[in-house]
Amino acid sequence: MSINNNKGNLIVISGPSGVGKGTLCRALLKKYSDIDYSVSATTRKPRPGEVHGKEYWFYSKEDFEKLIADNQLLEWAKVYNNYYGTPIDYVQEVIDKRKDCILEIDVQGAMKVKSKWSEGVFIFIAPPSKEELIRRITFRGTESDQEIKKRMSQTDEEMRCISNYDYVVVNDDIDKAVESIRAIIVAERCNITRLDSLKADIG
Amino acid sequence: MSINNNKGNLIVISGPSGVGKGTLCRALLKKYSDIDYSVSATTRKPRPGEVHGKEYWFYSKEDFEKLIADNQLLEWAKVYNNYYGTPIDYVQEVIDKRKDCILEIDVQGAMKVKSKWSEGVFIFIAPPSKEELIRRITFRGTESDQEIKKRMSQTDEEMRCISNYDYVVVNDDIDKAVESIRAIIVAERCNITRLDSLKADIG
Repeated sequence: MSINNNKGNLIVISGPSGVGKGTLCRALLKKYSDIDYSVSATTRKPRPGEVHGKEYWFYSKEDFEKLIADNQLLEWAKVYNNYYGTPIDYVQEVIDKRKDCILEIDVQGAMKVKSKWSEGVFIFIAPPSKEELIRRITFRGTESDQEIKKRMSQTDEEMRCISNYDYVVVNDDIDKAVESIRAIIVAERCNITRLDSLKADIG
Repeated sequence: MSINNNKGNLIVISGPSGVGKGTLCRALLKKYSDIDYSVSATTRKPRPGEVHGKEYWFYSKEDFEKLIADNQLLEWAKVYNNYYGTPIDYVQEVIDKRKDCILEIDVQGAMKVKSKWSEGVFIFIAPPSKEELIRRITFRGTESDQEIKKRMSQTDEEMRCISNYDYVVVNDDIDKAVESIRAIIVAERCNITRLDSLKADIG
């Protein structure tokens, strides 16, 4: 008998801006060494101390556009004249090592990833309430009333994508949310649809 | 916005005889207080110290046959002239309290439960190897060679049902297996298909 899951899973952690995705991902990666994270590619210049392959894969505009043309990105977007995207190769490398690969991404990006990598595990991080999300965004103190209004209307749209996800984790308490995500990752390793070499040859 | 899972889940823990289902369930129930277990009904006489509603629901033959006739059992079987079965009412009562309800049952019984309660979470406990399963069965020292042979052939049949389950947990290390089952239970509480009142009305 042999029950093996020869690969890790792509774990997509997504949700509205301000919901705390980044905090949850950092806490998860700090606590569990059998999880890695997807390093994004970008055309923006590295800041002092940033390392190619750690914070980002830094590419020239030409090379990034070649990645797009060659279908080498799970998703990409252009923000303020710079490209950002998720290289397929790196995700594949992580999961081939039987590690799970965390990808933290906004809802729009997650939906693009889903169209290319539907076997990913899609987790929607939800705020405990609308009021709490507004509080978290305004607490940063960096955005104007108009910007906050715009972001809330974006959040409404993002919440409507929730049914495209596999799981919903409410970020009420950070420790509890981290443990729920961890539980999902461990459970998915036991998921029968993911056991690619399931041989019931015990006889 | 309101994301509620108003009910617990029925967690069916099943697998070949000798695989350690009972040990895993006891460890799980001891460690986690938000899980309850399904109490079986039987027509066998209570042994000294056994309490109606704890070890079993003790019924007369007539009353048990009425439960069968009224479709009040998730599954039932007759063993050595006594009936054994799983009352639907009790499972419903546990999950209505937002607790998860563990049901430890052989493979044949699990397949019957699935036909009546397909929304259950079906977990197959697998031995690390055929050799280890034989070792565990013979270690008990209570069975003859012929009985062991018979049980191994039964195990072959049971292993063929594995694809009807949602998850496979290999019982290699008890603590690890308990944590995998726990992870599955926690993850299923976040499963989007189980969130019966999912309202994305954050707007």
